[in-house]
Amino acid sequence: MSTAMRNTPSPTSAQGRGSGGETTPKPQEVLDRAVKAPRVIIDRLRPCVDDGRFPAKGVLHQPILFEADVFSDGHEVLAAELVLRAPGHDGARRITMQALGNDRFQARVVPARVGRHLFTVEAWLDTWASYRRGLSRLHEADKVSPQDLAEGLERVGAAARVDRDGAVRSLMERLTGRSREEVIALLLDDGVAELMSSRLSRGFPTRHPYELSVDVERERAGFASWYELFPRSAGAPGRHGTFDDVVSRLPAIAAMGFDVLYMPPIHPIGTTKRKGRNNSLVAAPGDVGSPYAIGAADGGHDAVHADLGGIESLRRLRDAAAGYGIELALDIAIQCSPDHPWLREHPEWFSWRSDGSVKCAENPPKKYEDIVNVEFYNPGALPSLWIAWRDVIEKWIGEGIRMFRVDNPHTKPLPFWQWLIADIRSRHPDAIFLSEAFTKPAMMYRLAKIGFTQSYTYFTWRNHKEELDAYMRELTQEPPRDFFRPNFFVNTPDINPPFLQTSGRAGFLIRAALATTLSGLWGLYSGFELCEAAPLPGREEYLDSEKYELRHRDWTAPGNIVGEISRLNHLRRENRALQSHLWYQPVRSDNDHILVYARQVPGDDVLILVAVSLDPHATQEGTFDLPFDALEVGEGGALESEELMSGRRFVWHERRQHWRFVPQEMPFAIFKLRRAGGVVA
Amino acid sequence: MSTAMRNTPSPTSAQGRGSGGETTPKPQEVLDRAVKAPRVIIDRLRPCVDDGRFPAKGVLHQPILFEADVFSDGHEVLAAELVLRAPGHDGARRITMQALGNDRFQARVVPARVGRHLFTVEAWLDTWASYRRGLSRLHEADKVSPQDLAEGLERVGAAARVDRDGAVRSLMERLTGRSREEVIALLLDDGVAELMSSRLSRGFPTRHPYELSVDVERERAGFASWYELFPRSAGAPGRHGTFDDVVSRLPAIAAMGFDVLYMPPIHPIGTTKRKGRNNSLVAAPGDVGSPYAIGAADGGHDAVHADLGGIESLRRLRDAAAGYGIELALDIAIQCSPDHPWLREHPEWFSWRSDGSVKCAENPPKKYEDIVNVEFYNPGALPSLWIAWRDVIEKWIGEGIRMFRVDNPHTKPLPFWQWLIADIRSRHPDAIFLSEAFTKPAMMYRLAKIGFTQSYTYFTWRNHKEELDAYMRELTQEPPRDFFRPNFFVNTPDINPPFLQTSGRAGFLIRAALATTLSGLWGLYSGFELCEAAPLPGREEYLDSEKYELRHRDWTAPGNIVGEISRLNHLRRENRALQSHLWYQPVRSDNDHILVYARQVPGDDVLILVAVSLDPHATQEGTFDLPFDALEVGEGGALESEELMSGRRFVWHERRQHWRFVPQEMPFAIFKLRRAGGVVA
Repeated sequence: MSTAMRNTPSPTSAQGRGSGGETTPKPQEVLDRAVKAPRVIIDRLRPCVDDGRFPAKGVLHQPILFEADVFSDGHEVLAAELVLRAPGHDGARRITMQALGNDRFQARVVPARVGRHLFTVEAWLDTWASYRRGLSRLHEADKVSPQDLAEGLERVGAAARVDRDGAVRSLMERLTGRSREEVIALLLDDGVAELMSSRLSRGFPTRHPYELSVDVERERAGFASWYELFPRSAGAPGRHGTFDDVVSRLPAIAAMGFDVLYMPPIHPIGTTKRKGRNNSLVAAPGDVGSPYAIGAADGGHDAVHADLGGIESLRRLRDAAAGYGIELALDIAIQCSPDHPWLREHPEWFSWRSDGSVKCAENPPKKYEDIVNVEFYNPGALPSLWIAWRDVIEKWIGEGIRMFRVDNPHTKPLPFWQWLIADIRSRHPDAIFLSEAFTKPAMMYRLAKIGFTQSYTYFTWRNHKEELDAYMRELTQEPPRDFFRPNFFVNTPDINPPFLQTSGRAGFLIRAALATTLSGLWGLYSGFELCEAAPLPGREEYLDSEKYELRHRDWTAPGNIVGEISRLNHLRRENRALQSHLWYQPVRSDNDHILVYARQVPGDDVLILVAVSLDPHATQEGTFDLPFDALEVGEGGALESEELMSGRRFVWHERRQHWRFVPQEMPFAIFKLRRAGGVVA
Repeated sequence: MSTAMRNTPSPTSAQGRGSGGETTPKPQEVLDRAVKAPRVIIDRLRPCVDDGRFPAKGVLHQPILFEADVFSDGHEVLAAELVLRAPGHDGARRITMQALGNDRFQARVVPARVGRHLFTVEAWLDTWASYRRGLSRLHEADKVSPQDLAEGLERVGAAARVDRDGAVRSLMERLTGRSREEVIALLLDDGVAELMSSRLSRGFPTRHPYELSVDVERERAGFASWYELFPRSAGAPGRHGTFDDVVSRLPAIAAMGFDVLYMPPIHPIGTTKRKGRNNSLVAAPGDVGSPYAIGAADGGHDAVHADLGGIESLRRLRDAAAGYGIELALDIAIQCSPDHPWLREHPEWFSWRSDGSVKCAENPPKKYEDIVNVEFYNPGALPSLWIAWRDVIEKWIGEGIRMFRVDNPHTKPLPFWQWLIADIRSRHPDAIFLSEAFTKPAMMYRLAKIGFTQSYTYFTWRNHKEELDAYMRELTQEPPRDFFRPNFFVNTPDINPPFLQTSGRAGFLIRAALATTLSGLWGLYSGFELCEAAPLPGREEYLDSEKYELRHRDWTAPGNIVGEISRLNHLRRENRALQSHLWYQPVRSDNDHILVYARQVPGDDVLILVAVSLDPHATQEGTFDLPFDALEVGEGGALESEELMSGRRFVWHERRQHWRFVPQEMPFAIFKLRRAGGVVA
């Protein structure tokens, strides 16, 4: 289970955080400690969440960049090693870190195991490398003195005295009786450097004072395409759909390239204060109600709505979906209809008003008449209610479900989620939780820190170039990059984005292109592929929302973007640079309506360059800079380029390219770039 | 003394950093802890350095903005208090924090005491404020039910049962027998809110798990103007100057508004391998040598060069300077000439080569032939050498010196500085240490964290608008703001900035204006006021550098900028917005050569707006936006403005102003702005 810190008192000490100097140690003790304190500083380890109070996140088979500042006084050469291990195992992998410049060191690791990884960094002065660098510079300046050479030989002699396999003694022999130039060449030799650095004792070796942790999760935690639908709409027109009706949609969903099928709550729906169409306070006869008003006489969160075909129908869908490589995601909405069995069985879990009623959910002056909330901190709920929710999740895990979209987690206690997710994942490390916390950043990010795998984001409201770029930088260059996995939904049953209400088909292409190429995780709510956007007037809500009624659609309606979505999802599978948001790099373009960015997995020799016109109404054109440097294209070199939507191929010699986007045709372009053969920088 | 963390192992625990899940606690224990864990989150406290491992910095009488994220699940109103105390004292000041929006809370405190301050934050759900906000919204929507009122009265009743002074019972009486509207008015009343919030028990009260610390230093730690000179140049032409000669310079230095007089090392200078003029390897007879080659037969770091007039002359200068409000700063350069007495007295403090020589200081292929380094980690130096350096500082403190400019601290061990500064400041809290670490950011910032009061900066190499703004944002909006105090030197004996070598007089005005208005701390090396910039060809060094010879100047030479510098320093004394770098706010301007910024102490009703043309060669003009909002100027309002260099006054009604800068006249303008009387937003 997670041992991430909760917000509880921690011991402080003379070495610890915020120690206040309550007691003044004796001057002699202070000096004794100072002369033994590390001379080499190891700082700003990454990945790191709140100084290690929470684990960072990683994804199986996706590279993790471990980094640290390593520096010391003076001009010695420093060396650093990543020390990586599994909890409960002393044996550690040691990986040499590379100097990036400016005192930053890095090791790139591709995790091959799901679970907690612990790491720290060790660093030291590399006395041989320091000597060698000095000798090299003196040699270039033709200033090597006999004493300079003598000091190299003295170091070899020191290593020879503790030689375990004769390698240093053999070097000693090679150095004997040679000319000055031959001795210098040997002392500057790469192989000799490797031998000597490994044999001379490390200077002032230091280990970072604590380990940090990374939780590596399975691939769909970081790379997946979500498709959301209301199963009750899957039936023939006029008939309440079942999971078996959804089975018949699977070929189309799979052909579009989706691998997660997410359904709003599938449980019995209350009748008391049931909402009518378009969220009206009175339901008409036959109105199906909101699936979020969970619970009725025939069961609560662990039951399946009879009209959906019951549990057997769900199992058939689950198995059929698996055949298409599609995994089901269920909705966890912690709230009850007034008809939920728990109100009778566990009145101690609810808050009763002095007039004997249960307060409905509200955010004054808004009231949610068809639902009531549980009270996590009622004396009678501690901990029985918490356990009951855990058992609900376990029930669905027992049915083979491993993905959960959690409704409004920010209105339930943080300690509850932290415990719940850790508890579930201790037995089911493949469980995935998507947080639907459309709230302020502090809470949205906290939920990610305490265990949520993924999160809905502000992407839906970022339409302009500057704000999209700023948001991507926040997610990929600032602290959230280590703990927050964005799932870029382009719409949801709750969000009919104003941009799409007026953009026409081009806007849907723009948003699909952005979501699929900016984030490893994206999703859509069905209807998006048909460019549906009719709103409740003046609102972000859909007109005739499926939240309150059945909707039947013509999935081949003219103007749909099924082809483009299929192509985009296909490109995501083919190109691992598109499988995480982390590899985002902004690229300069001279048109404020054209966002350009590069996507490149560290170490790869191919790069995806995406250019999106954000204007769905007018043609936009502009120039942008090609990443010649990132692909190590030298003077006179060229880039091989393929535009992946059209398949057109180019060879580009100019660093600056001009492009034109016609919204009625294709408002974006995706280029796969690699260095043209043979010319290296 | 400082208890800031050194880079040594700290205990980890289930609640601590980087705990790796070695032991798996029982599920029941985990759940027990979860239900007791804080429901209210307090996070991201500020000021904060490395999660509290080092103290933050504050300045006496300059406001400190204490902040925290405070949030919880749901929609309750939160309240937060800063808890501030002195080490060793349990009694704490409690200061209500104000909500800034987005879950951020702030308290502004002006410290009135030098020394360590400890703080933490407490927060809770304010149940009355939550009820009141809900009632208010229902009232606005005309949806208040009798039950809604009953719940207010129930809360008053609960408070009345623990009423200590009758105030709540008196409120109860006022609520009795009133009309519905009267009851609502009372329940929404401000005074009632204050009473009820203070009497109802705090909901889920939480205290941040540890205290953080701020070291408050005396005013010159944060606000001072440094003037650097070589005292040996202060004599009549051809004669080696003494401190008594410097006394005669004091009136001019004071008139220019400087309050710190800093002198390079004043100790005996070695003769072995003494450098000649322009750093030549051979000194001519009569050459004075570099003052950084410290130590000769007549003494080392605790002695005064006889030619400077000896200790008595220094004391006369010290006292005379004090009469002008000027404080002396000495140079601590930890290195020895080969003639330093310590080489004889303490050979164990030096590193001897196998040929019997002491290695001179070097950074290959560069060699510093006239100096040798001490070896802090020689077995014979631990800790006697460390104590010897401490005693050197104590010696000068004994002479009334409290300010020290430390030469190249990044080439001496960090644990040494951390110990030395803490040790000195435990007895002399008014001691100030300026770090001359022209090196990479990690080291420059680390020195500030471990105790250096101030630091030289990269300012000298930031000449363009974007890079100046980026650097100021780094210093004022990113982590360095809490621990790093920049001292903006416009030149030094080591740095003859390329910009000034070609800028002419206008460039000196530009750099003086930037330094004096961007940072509370600035400094110049004498000659700058005369616009001296003759370089060693192609180098950043001065030609005929004073480091190796005497220089005699005509302080009234034509084209000097003594008047402008005097005015700028005067404005700094008059306007506290100019007394810290922290109050920097960038202001949009439409000309890439004109940098515009606002300076405003939080809470003040006056604002300094500075506009500087960065082009010393051509006239530049442009528009910039006036800070109507920061000064709360409403619709139709105006700003009263005074340009402080010229004394010209304006009343500005337009938010956008146009200005023109002629480098041969005045390449900058400094406006003092306040809201014109009467019109409030």
